[in-house]
Amino acid sequence: MDAVPDLDSVREAAGRIRPYAHRTPVLTCASLDHMLNAQLFFKCENFQKAGAFKFRGACNAVFSLSDTEASRGVATHSSGNHAAALALAAQMRNVEAFIVMPRNAPRVKRAAVAGYGGNIVYCKATLEAREEALAQVVQETGATFVHPYNDPRVIAGQGTAALELLEEVPDLDVVVAPVGGGGLLSGTALTVSDVSPETRVIGAEPEGADDACRSLQEGRIVPSVNPRTVADGLLTSLGDVTFPIIQAHAEQIVTVSEEQIIAAMRHVWERMKIIIEPSAAVPVGALFERKIDLTGARIGVILSGGNVDLDKLPWMLG
Amino acid sequence: MDAVPDLDSVREAAGRIRPYAHRTPVLTCASLDHMLNAQLFFKCENFQKAGAFKFRGACNAVFSLSDTEASRGVATHSSGNHAAALALAAQMRNVEAFIVMPRNAPRVKRAAVAGYGGNIVYCKATLEAREEALAQVVQETGATFVHPYNDPRVIAGQGTAALELLEEVPDLDVVVAPVGGGGLLSGTALTVSDVSPETRVIGAEPEGADDACRSLQEGRIVPSVNPRTVADGLLTSLGDVTFPIIQAHAEQIVTVSEEQIIAAMRHVWERMKIIIEPSAAVPVGALFERKIDLTGARIGVILSGGNVDLDKLPWMLG
Repeated sequence: MDAVPDLDSVREAAGRIRPYAHRTPVLTCASLDHMLNAQLFFKCENFQKAGAFKFRGACNAVFSLSDTEASRGVATHSSGNHAAALALAAQMRNVEAFIVMPRNAPRVKRAAVAGYGGNIVYCKATLEAREEALAQVVQETGATFVHPYNDPRVIAGQGTAALELLEEVPDLDVVVAPVGGGGLLSGTALTVSDVSPETRVIGAEPEGADDACRSLQEGRIVPSVNPRTVADGLLTSLGDVTFPIIQAHAEQIVTVSEEQIIAAMRHVWERMKIIIEPSAAVPVGALFERKIDLTGARIGVILSGGNVDLDKLPWMLG
Repeated sequence: MDAVPDLDSVREAAGRIRPYAHRTPVLTCASLDHMLNAQLFFKCENFQKAGAFKFRGACNAVFSLSDTEASRGVATHSSGNHAAALALAAQMRNVEAFIVMPRNAPRVKRAAVAGYGGNIVYCKATLEAREEALAQVVQETGATFVHPYNDPRVIAGQGTAALELLEEVPDLDVVVAPVGGGGLLSGTALTVSDVSPETRVIGAEPEGADDACRSLQEGRIVPSVNPRTVADGLLTSLGDVTFPIIQAHAEQIVTVSEEQIIAAMRHVWERMKIIIEPSAAVPVGALFERKIDLTGARIGVILSGGNVDLDKLPWMLG
């Protein structure tokens, strides 16, 4: 595969993951439309396998490998949705997944990876320890490293969510997606800009982790330093594959306050009766914050995932 | 309409409510299937208007009225889902709804009724005060009383959920529905027994509110006295319209422990990423409790509603 993913690679990914991934529903909600004075179309990746869009990219990467490559397994460092997604995709191909995560990773996240048969490799909770542990695993096993976002196969996979959304709702004015490392936003942006060039693509990011917004403004990757947000899927920095795609194809990135993220998450739970994680609430929060005028617009929102710890809901903390 | 609803009245109701009610999706969940060793088809009435199946019956009742009757409004006593459903149905027909509820009704329930434009009539928290307040409202306004469940129009409306379920999944071995006053179960039982006679209908009830189970065993309506359960939609006694239908068409009623209701609710939230209320978890809990052998069966489950207080989740209490 080419180093820079394009629409063809997204279409290939769509065919490749079709037997394994859910074609998630697009839901609407009259009361949220009323509150926001717009028409919203929610692409529900919270209903995706392993509970998040991450399965699309991981699945595309795993099933892109040759049999020989695949037989040596796949590896990554992540304690979040990518880890569970990669473990599940590997299980579906009947190969090993090695997941490097810090010893202090939450129990629910370890359980998710273990539940899909992933091999957890514990390391200390520093970036150096993590990279060292990953390098060692790759060296020992010959496993293929699948980066959580900065990988063309992963980006192409994530783009399939927008592809399905546009197939179902072709005439959108805007698509809004959350941005952390940029895998989802870059996949979404390259897909939308090609399939429906008149549709604007907007990224949404927590104020407390606004490195992508600043990166676009400064024209270079500004690293995410000490991010503070309830949206724990959006802590990472952009990558050198994702950033140029976002620069080329996303119109802007808006930031959202913690208060609004939590309020938006709760609105979706209460009105739509579906469970979304804080990261998925960020684009919805952006609409509530009305930093951009979208009155009357037809807006596609990618609800990125639904993995939450039901014992620790954000409106109950602090 | 006849005093005893039949399949024709359910089909009429389906046509009558079609412009107003959601045709709710039927969802499946591979991991719950795996846990229960069966094939489950969830009819998602948590996604229904006003968040519960109750809208079907209320809507059918309101739109069954003549223009003259309707112009005087509708009335009921309820602080639960029927109250909100009736208020919404009345709003859709542009007539008044008078909802009698105790002064100590939870804020969220009052807000739901008020949000749909219902007129709340407060009374003391006793059965006598409630009935007296209702009688007075009906006398003063000429409003039509719409009982929460013991009313043929309401029962026929509730039956439309099973009708849709069977249209989508015709070859079910069993349909399981929760039972409180019996509106949903009687509507489900009469519909299923006629449309798909080989499909068994089973009611599910909290152990702490097992009056319907005992009523079937004793062959008479055993009143619900001091029910204690987290499933606050299932506290009421059967009625003289619902009971004979359940006797005739439901195979049995199984009871479920509080522990299992809460565990089942949490399983659905975690695995399906949808919000269901405790009453809706009762049929799922019945399957987990395995009091009946349904190994390998194709099971329709009516998820009755999704209205919960997100500040007070049952696994966080006690």
